Amino acid sequence: MATSRSLLYFFLLLLIALAFLYAFISTSVRLAEEYKRPRRTLRAPKENLWDTLLDDEVSQLINWLYEPEQGLNLTYHDNATHWDNFIGVTELIPPNKTDALAYLEGNGSVPTRYARVVLFQGASEDPYVHEIKVGPLPISKKTTWEPYNYIYNKGDSATPWYGADDKKRLHEFFKPVVSELADITYDLLGTVIYGQDNDTGGLRTVDPLQKENGRIIQWLEFIGLPQNGYNAETLLSQGLYLKFDITGRDPKGWAFKALLYNDIMYNSSAEFRKAYNTPGFVKLNKIVQGDWMTTKRQGERLPLDELPPPIAVQAEGPRYLLDVKNKYIEWMGFSFYIGFSKDLGTSLHQIMYQGKRIIYELGLQEVMTHYAGNDPVSSGLTYLDSYYGIGSYMYRLIAGYDCPEYSTFLDNWFHENGHTMYQRNSVCIFEQDAGYTIQRHTSTKVMGFGGHHQGYASATRNTVLVVRTVASIDNYDYTFDYNFYLDGSIEVKVRASGYIQGAFYANNEDYGYRIHEALSGSFHTHVINFKADIDVMGEKNTFERISLVPTTEKYPWSEKPKNTMKLKRSSIGNEDNGKLNWPENAAEMYVIMNKDVKNKYGEYPGYRIVPASGSPAHLIIQDSPYILEAAEFSKHHLFVTKHKDSESRSSSAANYMNPWDPSVNFNKFFDGESLLQEDLVVWFNLGMHHVAHTGDLPNTVSTTAQGSMMISLHNYLDLDASRQTSQMVEINFFTEL
Amino acid sequence: MATSRSLLYFFLLLLIALAFLYAFISTSVRLAEEYKRPRRTLRAPKENLWDTLLDDEVSQLINWLYEPEQGLNLTYHDNATHWDNFIGVTELIPPNKTDALAYLEGNGSVPTRYARVVLFQGASEDPYVHEIKVGPLPISKKTTWEPYNYIYNKGDSATPWYGADDKKRLHEFFKPVVSELADITYDLLGTVIYGQDNDTGGLRTVDPLQKENGRIIQWLEFIGLPQNGYNAETLLSQGLYLKFDITGRDPKGWAFKALLYNDIMYNSSAEFRKAYNTPGFVKLNKIVQGDWMTTKRQGERLPLDELPPPIAVQAEGPRYLLDVKNKYIEWMGFSFYIGFSKDLGTSLHQIMYQGKRIIYELGLQEVMTHYAGNDPVSSGLTYLDSYYGIGSYMYRLIAGYDCPEYSTFLDNWFHENGHTMYQRNSVCIFEQDAGYTIQRHTSTKVMGFGGHHQGYASATRNTVLVVRTVASIDNYDYTFDYNFYLDGSIEVKVRASGYIQGAFYANNEDYGYRIHEALSGSFHTHVINFKADIDVMGEKNTFERISLVPTTEKYPWSEKPKNTMKLKRSSIGNEDNGKLNWPENAAEMYVIMNKDVKNKYGEYPGYRIVPASGSPAHLIIQDSPYILEAAEFSKHHLFVTKHKDSESRSSSAANYMNPWDPSVNFNKFFDGESLLQEDLVVWFNLGMHHVAHTGDLPNTVSTTAQGSMMISLHNYLDLDASRQTSQMVEINFFTEL
Ligand SMILES: [Ca+2]
Ligand SMILES: [Ca+2]
Ligand SMILES: [Cu+2]
Ligand SMILES: [Cu+2]
Repeated sequence: MATSRSLLYFFLLLLIALAFLYAFISTSVRLAEEYKRPRRTLRAPKENLWDTLLDDEVSQLINWLYEPEQGLNLTYHDNATHWDNFIGVTELIPPNKTDALAYLEGNGSVPTRYARVVLFQGASEDPYVHEIKVGPLPISKKTTWEPYNYIYNKGDSATPWYGADDKKRLHEFFKPVVSELADITYDLLGTVIYGQDNDTGGLRTVDPLQKENGRIIQWLEFIGLPQNGYNAETLLSQGLYLKFDITGRDPKGWAFKALLYNDIMYNSSAEFRKAYNTPGFVKLNKIVQGDWMTTKRQGERLPLDELPPPIAVQAEGPRYLLDVKNKYIEWMGFSFYIGFSKDLGTSLHQIMYQGKRIIYELGLQEVMTHYAGNDPVSSGLTYLDSYYGIGSYMYRLIAGYDCPEYSTFLDNWFHENGHTMYQRNSVCIFEQDAGYTIQRHTSTKVMGFGGHHQGYASATRNTVLVVRTVASIDNYDYTFDYNFYLDGSIEVKVRASGYIQGAFYANNEDYGYRIHEALSGSFHTHVINFKADIDVMGEKNTFERISLVPTTEKYPWSEKPKNTMKLKRSSIGNEDNGKLNWPENAAEMYVIMNKDVKNKYGEYPGYRIVPASGSPAHLIIQDSPYILEAAEFSKHHLFVTKHKDSESRSSSAANYMNPWDPSVNFNKFFDGESLLQEDLVVWFNLGMHHVAHTGDLPNTVSTTAQGSMMISLHNYLDLDASRQTSQMVEINFFTEL
Repeated sequence: MATSRSLLYFFLLLLIALAFLYAFISTSVRLAEEYKRPRRTLRAPKENLWDTLLDDEVSQLINWLYEPEQGLNLTYHDNATHWDNFIGVTELIPPNKTDALAYLEGNGSVPTRYARVVLFQGASEDPYVHEIKVGPLPISKKTTWEPYNYIYNKGDSATPWYGADDKKRLHEFFKPVVSELADITYDLLGTVIYGQDNDTGGLRTVDPLQKENGRIIQWLEFIGLPQNGYNAETLLSQGLYLKFDITGRDPKGWAFKALLYNDIMYNSSAEFRKAYNTPGFVKLNKIVQGDWMTTKRQGERLPLDELPPPIAVQAEGPRYLLDVKNKYIEWMGFSFYIGFSKDLGTSLHQIMYQGKRIIYELGLQEVMTHYAGNDPVSSGLTYLDSYYGIGSYMYRLIAGYDCPEYSTFLDNWFHENGHTMYQRNSVCIFEQDAGYTIQRHTSTKVMGFGGHHQGYASATRNTVLVVRTVASIDNYDYTFDYNFYLDGSIEVKVRASGYIQGAFYANNEDYGYRIHEALSGSFHTHVINFKADIDVMGEKNTFERISLVPTTEKYPWSEKPKNTMKLKRSSIGNEDNGKLNWPENAAEMYVIMNKDVKNKYGEYPGYRIVPASGSPAHLIIQDSPYILEAAEFSKHHLFVTKHKDSESRSSSAANYMNPWDPSVNFNKFFDGESLLQEDLVVWFNLGMHHVAHTGDLPNTVSTTAQGSMMISLHNYLDLDASRQTSQMVEINFFTEL
């Protein structure tokens, strides 16, 4: 009996041991396969249709353009004078949506590839920039070129190039004027310009050019050159302004027209010199250079600050899958391609969530900054940064600062002037702990008559996938984030830092604070336009406004009517009503719905779009005399239009060269077409009104200069999608916490 | 010659070696003293004046209150019937500002301590709640009590206590009515209530109570009780409503008045039963319980999700200094005390920055949620959570989820019903990497005529100090953050999660989406009011509006007038103009300035207050028939008043008990007093309009339910304060990046 019982115990123990062993082995296998060597790369299901041209494609293309048969009369950029024609940007034209979807989601073949080539046509009395479309690529017998008119609703892909003689004017026309004033500028401003390497001053142009009575006008401002190696010259306005007429290509037609100092106009240098030599001439404060212009550490050291602050670590590598070649990513139910262009930088395409396309295209359209001021330069300064090429300013990122050390860094490159420019590590991808739970709940309550006790705490980690780039466009640095959340939301975030563009302090009280000895924090509005081609369960969607309105209602259960509030639903019927602002008191929701589909409770599935941080800004200035109709997207907070391949961008690089007749007039998109169950595109603005104060020196601080938009599922799934994650905890409040 | 040279070399080498040794030793010493064993605790310069009463104080106080000499006729709470008097909350009364500042910043002694004691007076035909002020503390011969009228602008610290007989009514009056209907509710709703432990249904009251023709009305709704242990009963409205008259203390005066089902009123159970038994009676959908109510993991597993996501680590301990006893913190130039109250939870006091007070008091005032609906319950539900005691719902935090593992956790405790309630680890303090730089700039440019090349990248870490609490007020979880930034900014952030309070779906289409079988995402507005007693370089300040306005201006340099924009500055002259909303298009800045002080460039130093994330909400409902004048703070986005010790809070726990004559009518604060160079208090709202959709199930997701306000320096220092940190990098773009 005893023996058999021992035997039984022995077998029982053996069984338990085997079970443990099995459990251990199976866990180990799982760990080894799933965790320790996870598949972190993958092959994109289809090719990326929105990345840069391949090196082969572009070198063949450029050789082809130089062939006499094409009749383009091109000179190699590095040898070109201002009287030659040369090649500027060369990049891929995104495919038509229909073709792209046929390939991506059906059996269609890869859409035929075409390039956009920008030609600078200097060999002409009326120099111009011309955009052509070349294809099919790669180069073959079938390849041809034609004017790339399709996306320019001006109807023409050519734009006057008033800047063709910039260098010549700088060296041969402006220089003598400013050199001749050197004795006065040395006294008044503390700097001189002779056009030499050791100049202590420089000239700032006001962009864009202006027209006056049919003449092309260029205003210039004297600025100090930083003497300490910092890129701070936008803080060194000096308040002396020159006006030139630069009409035409013949220097004989150019003229120095006037000089402005302390709000007084002088018609010539001689007149200014005379006034300067007259007793009583008012001399304004000079700029004072110093450490205040530098971003180096300064001021008292902070206690314990040299200890390492908390940083994020990633113990076992990334949890996203990446096809580096195709710039394709999969993460927690999301997948998308990353595109790139020299003008606009990084964009996202074919964003899928849980197997369905939710956004066909999401990307920057334009970065506008409109200044105001008492002087002709700060009054007129209006940047449209895509003209300068936002993508070309997306420099290498600083690992450990711009992005966590553990990020994946991708390269960008673009083709301009016949060269390929590489920007290593200019896109970073990383997961980030948001620093707060996406869901949490604690309950310790006694319930019902019975009073059964519950006590638990439940919480879910909020891990975010971030795709980040930074464009340092001369003085300003814009950090662009595309953030993906576990609840299916996508956030587009912009943060500003870098140097403000200041103005000279004198007479500028109504246009900004005085923030240094001779510096005004010249106030301005940033309007940063994005395109979101949202598709809710197919392309046919409707833009719904759900207004929350006060009302007085009668109810069967109440003798008297009650003051309350209710939902008022309406659709934006057509493009004439497609220009929107964010409502006062946030008392309205904007949702893109598919009204041909109902969820199981009878509601239409949709995505809501809503400002998530900062305050979106549209332009305050009405009918800007400088940007004219070149930036109509800046007049409201957001817009809805019907998708058209020909309405591919809300702006264009060429817009800035000719605001009098812009290549893309965004306002023409709004021509009464129905928006009911159509393919909709939402164009939204981020940005801010920026009244710089002393805290913007030396650089604007991101914490108070950021804004974002959230695009989130709305009655789209049956439950919150973040319930899928394993990164959660549920514990007994009374025994475990 | 050779020898003497060798000797020279030898001495030189020795010197170098010694220098190295010295450098090494001095570095080691520095490391050892400053870094490896940094002083992480400190003694607060003064005692905390805003924390809870000490245990000794409170036990003496309670004994004193029971003494017959005080004439309060109190019964120990746990023995009290509804016809007895007992003690509720017992807590410290904050000192007057003048006394506090005399102590904190001068030679004044510690302000005399007084307690606020809430007395529930049940032993009366008209039961009431009475607040008294007791002091000085600790108890001595000098201690007396008086009505605590001072902060109640009703002029009286007593409030009717209509809920005195709640338990009795529940057990003896409501129970028979619902039991008698059990057969019908079992059929219609699927649940029964007999007042037993195994009841499957419960009753929800509508708060606050209502008055009709002078009678006190209580509406009740049948709800399902969750069968799976989750606190989800707010998702289980059943659409059957009962109306009772509960006026007075005598049950003979109470009456069951009516029953409401499917928008039809029945005057008695019999009438309802008759209709129910009549053919054609419409039976609505029943609630369906299931996993959708649970916060457990559900749905498909996400790829790679079981790998650890990035988390924050803190290598060498905290970089703040803490006096745990006094709840006093110093961090990077900031210092402050943490206060606590049962009604309002955590607050911050005497916030100093760089040696100067910037905020005297920063704290929550009220959490209001106002619902709307077609039924009497969701129409009338209006929570003022301080009545329930927001601090008493600030439970233990989940380390690693609510706050990083490396956080410092503090305890709270409060005194209620003669007991001391401890809430361990209910405040967490931690530094956090914001996930983006506070400053960055890259420059690769060629400058001026001379074209000297620069290429550098500069970036600064954005480390934030967070003080966090979470209040799980029954169904909802509010996470409250006070964030401190290196640029001197302070952010107040609220995030919502937990269970929504739904409504029954039927006939509620105008008041929310149908989000489950029988559930409406009953729409509501959260208005979360905060007080910020900001002091800019002393108490005397002015609230400035800087409007950004479109204008057309003539300039000496332009023939034609130009459309532009400019700043228009104005002050809020007196309290009649002290009710504000956030402007359309963010085209106005609100800055609290000290106009008796100018910075070195002639501008007034100030702090700007601006929404940083989310969209602040004020109430949409006009003149709510339920909350009446008890929540006047909910009618605008923010308010400015002159500081008064008697206007200590914008609301009160008692307000909710008697909205017809609230103890604090916030509107009375606005009585025309001058606000020009006076001690100002800003009262601002966070919150949101919440139209719940399927993504709010099971819990609201924080990512789309958050809002914050930023209070930041404005022309206050000469430069951005974050330049002081050592946590920055500056590298050569061309050789190091
Ligand atoms: Ca679309
Ligand atoms: Ca104040
Ligand atoms: Cu700016
Ligand atoms: Cu809510």
